[in-house]
Amino acid sequence: MAISVVGLDGDDTLWHNETRFVLTQTAFNDLLRRHVPEADVEGHLAEVEMKNLGLYGYGVKAFTLSMIESAIQLTGGKIPAADLEVILGWGKRMLMEPTELLDGVEAALRELNGRYDLLLITKGDLFDQESKLARSGLADLFAGVEILSEKNVESYRTVLARRGIKAEEFVMVGNSLKSDIAPVLALGARAVHIPYPVTWHHEVVPEESLPKSRWHRLEGIGELGLALGQM
Amino acid sequence: MAISVVGLDGDDTLWHNETRFVLTQTAFNDLLRRHVPEADVEGHLAEVEMKNLGLYGYGVKAFTLSMIESAIQLTGGKIPAADLEVILGWGKRMLMEPTELLDGVEAALRELNGRYDLLLITKGDLFDQESKLARSGLADLFAGVEILSEKNVESYRTVLARRGIKAEEFVMVGNSLKSDIAPVLALGARAVHIPYPVTWHHEVVPEESLPKSRWHRLEGIGELGLALGQM
Repeated sequence: MAISVVGLDGDDTLWHNETRFVLTQTAFNDLLRRHVPEADVEGHLAEVEMKNLGLYGYGVKAFTLSMIESAIQLTGGKIPAADLEVILGWGKRMLMEPTELLDGVEAALRELNGRYDLLLITKGDLFDQESKLARSGLADLFAGVEILSEKNVESYRTVLARRGIKAEEFVMVGNSLKSDIAPVLALGARAVHIPYPVTWHHEVVPEESLPKSRWHRLEGIGELGLALGQM
Repeated sequence: MAISVVGLDGDDTLWHNETRFVLTQTAFNDLLRRHVPEADVEGHLAEVEMKNLGLYGYGVKAFTLSMIESAIQLTGGKIPAADLEVILGWGKRMLMEPTELLDGVEAALRELNGRYDLLLITKGDLFDQESKLARSGLADLFAGVEILSEKNVESYRTVLARRGIKAEEFVMVGNSLKSDIAPVLALGARAVHIPYPVTWHHEVVPEESLPKSRWHRLEGIGELGLALGQM
């Protein structure tokens, strides 16, 4: 069956995201090292984030709260409130930053737009994602937008069912094997993986666990139009 | 045209919400008064919340971040990190609390379930709202769930259009004149207002600004089935 609907991930597929987190994390390391030079700041923050994931979900607000918690714990409560105010400011800056598109995104989407129905399927904080989309200038190119709290087989199944899309006519495009590729393949749909230079440790899955067929890997979104035509 | 779809708000319509915030706010007042006995703690927190609304949106994570910011500002950076840890803990407790249904909610929804399509239409943090719904035990009663970042004419219009629902066959039930009643009436649909004992100051609108017809006020959700039959 020919592809008629193309799902596109947002963060790190259409616009830069993980680099914002990595930059802030580096600043967090530097700040904390001044108080506790020996501490494993990165490891502790990652642990706190994972522990809070089931309670906070994804996004900048969750990340900010976990940084504050981690800073207090790492310093045994000795971190001055002024430093925590700096951390709050980092979170706000991340939320206000312009949506920076990856190279070639706009041209690629405009090319696909007439040929396929484009759906933005992204996960994370509802408010933050809507705001990023609005600032991206891409909103008009999408036939629909789905912001999910988690991307798994069940949530993709729900989206396709509600929109009356058959798995055989659907392809998902994204940078995360775990969130964009694996669950979609499990449903019998197709997928295109476009890796991003940085991957959050939480999103890593072993490639051997994926089916061998029904998905492709591209270097960049500029190749997408051609690749879809051949799928 | 007869009503076929009933939209129901979640927070303070189906389950208690604002009281959780008020309780935490009281604890926040008490904590801050120990450091700054003369300060207008409540007023300052409300100001910080409003200032952050466009950046954080609604929900417990946003509220927690605003409490931390307000505590640092009110004490001129002198609040000990241990107290901020306590505030972080309040936020987590709010997110973990069981979903406490208002009186009569389950019986009322079961009664309506066969007669109408029920839609949960709630606003706030995606992750928190999904989690509350899952813990409510009500999920199976809804034909659909819409979690919006803001409830206004535009967002209701989008929901109705996407689901192919005509304004004339739709009624919205909720506790907030601003979020549940006014925008729906503006679309030509009907509404039922069931006030909750506490209303967040941000949700207050003057009743004179509403149309006189197409909406009713009930004392409790137990009266809803009868009222809908007469609309």
